Amino acid sequence: MTGIDDLPIRDELRGQSPYGAPQLDVPVRLNTNENPHPLPEPLVARIAERVAEAARELNRYPDRDAVELRTGLARYLTRTTGYEVGTENVWAANGSNEVLQQLLQAFGGPGRTAIGFEPSYSMHALIARGTGTGWISGPRHDDFRLDVDAARAVIAERRPHVVFVCSPNNPTGTAVDADTVLALYEAAQAARPSLVIVDEAYGEFSHRPSLLPLIDGRPHLVVSRTMSKAFGAAGLRLGYLAAHPAVVDAVQLVRLPYHLSAVTQATALAALEHTDTLLGYVEQLKTERDRLVAELRAMGCEVTESDANFVQFGRFDGPGGARAVWQALLDRGVLVRDNGVPGRLRVTAGTPAENDAFLDAMRAVLKENDR
Amino acid sequence: MTGIDDLPIRDELRGQSPYGAPQLDVPVRLNTNENPHPLPEPLVARIAERVAEAARELNRYPDRDAVELRTGLARYLTRTTGYEVGTENVWAANGSNEVLQQLLQAFGGPGRTAIGFEPSYSMHALIARGTGTGWISGPRHDDFRLDVDAARAVIAERRPHVVFVCSPNNPTGTAVDADTVLALYEAAQAARPSLVIVDEAYGEFSHRPSLLPLIDGRPHLVVSRTMSKAFGAAGLRLGYLAAHPAVVDAVQLVRLPYHLSAVTQATALAALEHTDTLLGYVEQLKTERDRLVAELRAMGCEVTESDANFVQFGRFDGPGGARAVWQALLDRGVLVRDNGVPGRLRVTAGTPAENDAFLDAMRAVLKENDR
Repeated sequence: MTGIDDLPIRDELRGQSPYGAPQLDVPVRLNTNENPHPLPEPLVARIAERVAEAARELNRYPDRDAVELRTGLARYLTRTTGYEVGTENVWAANGSNEVLQQLLQAFGGPGRTAIGFEPSYSMHALIARGTGTGWISGPRHDDFRLDVDAARAVIAERRPHVVFVCSPNNPTGTAVDADTVLALYEAAQAARPSLVIVDEAYGEFSHRPSLLPLIDGRPHLVVSRTMSKAFGAAGLRLGYLAAHPAVVDAVQLVRLPYHLSAVTQATALAALEHTDTLLGYVEQLKTERDRLVAELRAMGCEVTESDANFVQFGRFDGPGGARAVWQALLDRGVLVRDNGVPGRLRVTAGTPAENDAFLDAMRAVLKENDR
Repeated sequence: MTGIDDLPIRDELRGQSPYGAPQLDVPVRLNTNENPHPLPEPLVARIAERVAEAARELNRYPDRDAVELRTGLARYLTRTTGYEVGTENVWAANGSNEVLQQLLQAFGGPGRTAIGFEPSYSMHALIARGTGTGWISGPRHDDFRLDVDAARAVIAERRPHVVFVCSPNNPTGTAVDADTVLALYEAAQAARPSLVIVDEAYGEFSHRPSLLPLIDGRPHLVVSRTMSKAFGAAGLRLGYLAAHPAVVDAVQLVRLPYHLSAVTQATALAALEHTDTLLGYVEQLKTERDRLVAELRAMGCEVTESDANFVQFGRFDGPGGARAVWQALLDRGVLVRDNGVPGRLRVTAGTPAENDAFLDAMRAVLKENDR
């Protein structure tokens, strides 16, 4: 039987497995940082309406430049960050993964390198690999904060073409302050003209303001965002970026033409009409997130400060480490994420009932382990 | 003012322009091979219904493996080609461009090469560039048919990792027979283990049977398809491939996780429910396509045999060449495509009224030029 390794695939792909969290059928799924709130029914109706309208012209190619959607996203960013961006500052694609892929196709690629400070969002390294960009794993402090001095040193030494800063950082949870980003931006530009990408996929959940205003006067700084989390639309696959208009022009050199379907554009526009309701859910999730942090700390867990809709907790240094606790929680019907950070797990803030179920399971597991 | 060239983009992108036909506001648009039939109203309603259903779970990630959709596409292929394929033979992505991009990421990429026989679909070369794959421009006969002997010779000499065969070929229109594909497949495998991609984006419009059954026993042969043309859904962005299951496994090593939105999957599934109606439109378009060929020939044009929903016609060797005729047609409200093939233009088969308008404009232009 012919298998992958019998095919003439690229050498670096041999023996690899596809990325993705296990999709298990479990009562409480808190493993992929999904928003637990289904879209409100009036928004579902509005999506059906706008999609039907788009479907009547589905025989035609979609607006290749997605102007109406980018205008809507620009308004949303302006309103929520207080920094005015226009249509020309915004670009959208099928999930922020595709946004990042396009950025690496234009600014990374063969013969170039990108750096991330790990542990961080593991897709950064995978998208680098997929675009032929060399990957440099940069350091963090032991408490998972960015180590500015170490980061500057490695940037000066390795001179990467692209620098990833994930804020709030996934899977650890903590946001980065503006001074840190500015220090890295300056270090990166001093090494060579390079692109700094601030991945704010979880930006709306942060205690800190968005880093978006930093794009002002810095044409090599990009902020990426997504509708998957704050807009409760992981199934929609809509990511976007804000940057200098020249960056938006540059990604259009590598984007596949008509990459964003008319149906996606229509659905995203409908969701933007319901921003207030969806941001209300974000506030509820922030409260639940803070409760998870407090309760896990009360149990004696070491919890990383969270600005996201998830919480990293540990340490599990006993037999089997974090993996054993992950399995024990799964045995109790609660699926969390083992991101491979030693001694730590990550839990998504779910509904109050889901979070209660998780906290109850955790108490039971810790009690069991104490015996 | 900062422009693209002030950014640290890749050298090979400097001075380039984004791909895409001009989107001009003209009464008769026959330039992008769109299907002129809007989706029937019952299908629009069914799309709204299925999308609303999907929207109720939009806070969750979509089915990463798109199993229901791939199963539906496999049934469609089995039914229309007579060759039985299963879910495991099929992969889907955002337009066949993304399918091809994933194939090149896995089987092409830096240090590897791909060949196409030009003129052909220009995105093949662009996607090669975007994935760091070297591009080899292979030859054709003067009448645009594949030159098998010349193709075998260049494959033997250059030993490409990926071979593109576009059938029916865009922009010239003619389909390839099975013997030709087999000859190229054998030449390609003799040179090195390599992937042969048969791009059947316009397959449903052909006088010849699909080349899909050739995947039988040939794990290095892939057939790509799209719902943009035959399903009248260019706005949906749904492309797919059929191949050995190992190829489907291989693209999953490079696909972005959750690349295909729940909304796209729902819409495509709705369209598959209305296959019979949509294939009825295809039959009407084939009749119109044949009429365009006959009438253009009656005017004295040189017309390339067409198995697609478009027709290549010429030759315009007078002052200004094809570009002057393109402009003269545009002046009369008809937009066709100048693909850069010397002395030729391409016109999409539209509605009978649109085709009449085009033919009238052509007659007027030829008469004008005769003076």
